[in-house]
Amino acid sequence: MKTSDYKIDSGKSAKLDSFPTRYEGKLTKEEGLKKLAELTERLQVLQDLLYADGRKAILVVLQAMDAAGKDSTIKKVFGPINPQGCKVASFKTPNSTELAHDFLWRIHQNVPRRGHIGVFNRSHYEDVLIVRVKELAPKDIVKKRYDHINNFEALLHDEGTHVVKFFLHISRDHQKAQLQERLDTPEKNWKFSPQDIPERLRWDDYQKAFEHVFEKCSTPEAPWYIVPAERKWFRNLLVAQVLVETLESMNLEYPKVDFDPREIKIP
Amino acid sequence: MKTSDYKIDSGKSAKLDSFPTRYEGKLTKEEGLKKLAELTERLQVLQDLLYADGRKAILVVLQAMDAAGKDSTIKKVFGPINPQGCKVASFKTPNSTELAHDFLWRIHQNVPRRGHIGVFNRSHYEDVLIVRVKELAPKDIVKKRYDHINNFEALLHDEGTHVVKFFLHISRDHQKAQLQERLDTPEKNWKFSPQDIPERLRWDDYQKAFEHVFEKCSTPEAPWYIVPAERKWFRNLLVAQVLVETLESMNLEYPKVDFDPREIKIP
Repeated sequence: MKTSDYKIDSGKSAKLDSFPTRYEGKLTKEEGLKKLAELTERLQVLQDLLYADGRKAILVVLQAMDAAGKDSTIKKVFGPINPQGCKVASFKTPNSTELAHDFLWRIHQNVPRRGHIGVFNRSHYEDVLIVRVKELAPKDIVKKRYDHINNFEALLHDEGTHVVKFFLHISRDHQKAQLQERLDTPEKNWKFSPQDIPERLRWDDYQKAFEHVFEKCSTPEAPWYIVPAERKWFRNLLVAQVLVETLESMNLEYPKVDFDPREIKIP
Repeated sequence: MKTSDYKIDSGKSAKLDSFPTRYEGKLTKEEGLKKLAELTERLQVLQDLLYADGRKAILVVLQAMDAAGKDSTIKKVFGPINPQGCKVASFKTPNSTELAHDFLWRIHQNVPRRGHIGVFNRSHYEDVLIVRVKELAPKDIVKKRYDHINNFEALLHDEGTHVVKFFLHISRDHQKAQLQERLDTPEKNWKFSPQDIPERLRWDDYQKAFEHVFEKCSTPEAPWYIVPAERKWFRNLLVAQVLVETLESMNLEYPKVDFDPREIKIP
């Protein structure tokens, strides 16, 4: 599996129709799960190193249509790593204090500190997705936000935070099945909101808004990956693989100490 | 194993000498690890329920002498649970903004939101431990802090956050061995600080300061547990068991929905 097959090259247009929602490659589920277990172990080692190094951070952005599996990706990929160095931030409808500031204000407050992995469940991209689709802000304001987002992510990158962004890609039919499951399973009823239905009816508008995002905001420093998300094991595998590759590219090191360990006597 | 054996009853004096630092009971390591795996699964289910319920929270406070295993407890007990509902806050030397406020100011900002598990790696107790031992604040100020802590924890409890506090109890010799290991293992060198040695020399003062804390600040709503911490599997087991018992006592429920799932048709 090559992660670059799923990456949007900078400035390229990205038609979602041309990306698979379901992995149909040669890897079997059994092989995939074995590989994921290996990657998870590697991820644990690299996270330890990131934490010890203390000079850099990773920010993972997760976006998707409703019920595509953001929560479950977080649980499965980030569950096994040390919670001391991993913080998840979920961005819901902004509150009045947040709305009283620019759209990146609440985002900036939640970026990971050095040494940490930060995970955004939804993100600043909502401000060019739902806000665009439902016209919650004037068009000319929204239009400028793509540049503001790129500048912000470049700032993070240049100051030591690597940004990777994942779109969990599913089909309209798959979403229907997932929502139906929430209705059919009593312990999942609370995850369903009647508001999900009008959102679902805007499917095509959202897909278009996402395509816009991928075209304008996939940069070499902060790339977007389109993850075929209908098979969970493959979705988790691809996300974990990108994370491992990113961490491995960061030249992390255990800090050098300014004493000679052999010379210290503990009383 | 009865968790109540390790709990400090409200107002009782607690001599640390009379508490074991190493579990020497009947349970074998193999049995303990099996039980821990079962508790971890149960914890995952209960965390899901806590998150779904959304009305209550848990705050876990971890305190210990240096190198007693706070980080490793967090990794092992809280690693397997969903990071979306679990935040760890580490309290280091307060910065100038923090020092410009009362000692509970930075603590309050980090308490878990409803639905979450919050873990404090060190806590407001430092302000009656290191601050007391090294006389970093006037005595009469420190003396009043025990009441302020109890009042603060009662506030949290009454507003829905259950507080459980663990002291990871080790012997002086065990600390020596742990610190030596940091010196002997190159990838662990960075965890050692020459400053650890003068702190170690104040061992007896710290033990006394802890005894004071247990006597004054173990309440039915926010009890202290003295965890024999020299055998890691038992330490993790006891912490997990207390967490499960606490969550089970909280009457958590999946939220009721205000629609009839059978009547909804997904377009």
